Amino acid sequence: MKLSARNMLQGTVSDVRKDGVAAQVQIDIGGGNVITSTITADSANRLGLENGKAVTVVVKASDVILAVDD
Amino acid sequence: MKLSARNMLQGTVSDVRKDGVAAQVQIDIGGGNVITSTITADSANRLGLENGKAVTVVVKASDVILAVDD
Amino acid sequence: MKLSARNMLQGTVSDVRKDGVAAQVQIDIGGGNVITSTITADSANRLGLENGKAVTVVVKASDVILAVDD
Amino acid sequence: MKLSARNMLQGTVSDVRKDGVAAQVQIDIGGGNVITSTITADSANRLGLENGKAVTVVVKASDVILAVDD
Amino acid sequence: MKLSARNMLQGTVSDVRKDGVAAQVQIDIGGGNVITSTITADSANRLGLENGKAVTVVVKASDVILAVDD
Amino acid sequence: MKLSARNMLQGTVSDVRKDGVAAQVQIDIGGGNVITSTITADSANRLGLENGKAVTVVVKASDVILAVDD
Repeated sequence: MKLSARNMLQGTVSDVRKDGVAAQVQIDIGGGNVITSTITADSANRLGLENGKAVTVVVKASDVILAVDD
Repeated sequence: MKLSARNMLQGTVSDVRKDGVAAQVQIDIGGGNVITSTITADSANRLGLENGKAVTVVVKASDVILAVDD
Repeated sequence: MKLSARNMLQGTVSDVRKDGVAAQVQIDIGGGNVITSTITADSANRLGLENGKAVTVVVKASDVILAVDD
Repeated sequence: MKLSARNMLQGTVSDVRKDGVAAQVQIDIGGGNVITSTITADSANRLGLENGKAVTVVVKASDVILAVDD
Repeated sequence: MKLSARNMLQGTVSDVRKDGVAAQVQIDIGGGNVITSTITADSANRLGLENGKAVTVVVKASDVILAVDD
Repeated sequence: MKLSARNMLQGTVSDVRKDGVAAQVQIDIGGGNVITSTITADSANRLGLENGKAVTVVVKASDVILAVDD
């Protein structure tokens, strides 16, 4: 499957926390960077997310904000 | 300024393309990864985005989708 | 590849329009419903989107707004 | 009221689950397709969402990702 | 129609700019604040957006980022 | 820090509610308008959000939907 979403980064799950509806997942993408994703707890279960699992971080280009120093 | 957005990656602008309303900006974040952002052309001008400029990529956790291999 | 995004609908491309940065793609998902997606023109080219091509519409649950009649 | 959001699908609520902040709502849009939406629990209450209620699914075109088979 | 989206601000269109796919619309919401929205040019036409027209700005709570001074 | 996000409104936190993963924050922006933001509970803690704290509401232009009366 190919996605229109432009941004895909390889990483490894380093933390999963769930409550009734939501899950917060942390993904180590290397270089000292950790990405945080909030998805549904159902999706975290369906994808079998747990520490050490390889995942791809996907972000649509229109959801990327840029910042520069003043 | 501190942001609630969880994900911030340092990079360098490697390409800017603009049309009447939109701009597509590519940011080299190292490790062979390039992030693409679509913002308004006005914002690209206001931030002075051009090749080589240091920028921070900002993504809200709720905009991060995860994918796993089957 | 399995995605955390909850919503996936099968359809067929019925229109593609591009300008310098953006593309607007219409997808017939049957039952008289047409979905409109805006992606980058680059992605439309990379995915080979053209009339008649089978595509999957993907939407993250947090991007779905609900409306009810008053 | 007319919305700039391009995508509107008619459906019926088939499940509502709430925790302290969030609600996960499932909407049967026919043709064997179920849409999942995450909104605030407050909004689920304010709209009176419960099984069997008619709702409209609203998605902005810029939040629609497309996928094609390899 | 009632929307699950939590944020609705009344305003007046103060500028509309369109290209092939996208439109950038500015909305004066009073108090010296102007909101910028990017929608499709088709939607801008369908809603009859032009200077002076009354509009409601709608934003889903999950799309609101917060910032605080250091 | 300057952001590509076009919309920034000054306000004051008027309510914070948290559960395991998510936080719902209400911000009084004056003129009788209250903005609701859902962010992670971690971010609400990291930013020290509590009633009376000054915050800036940030919204990317592509996340702004417009509505007009019929």
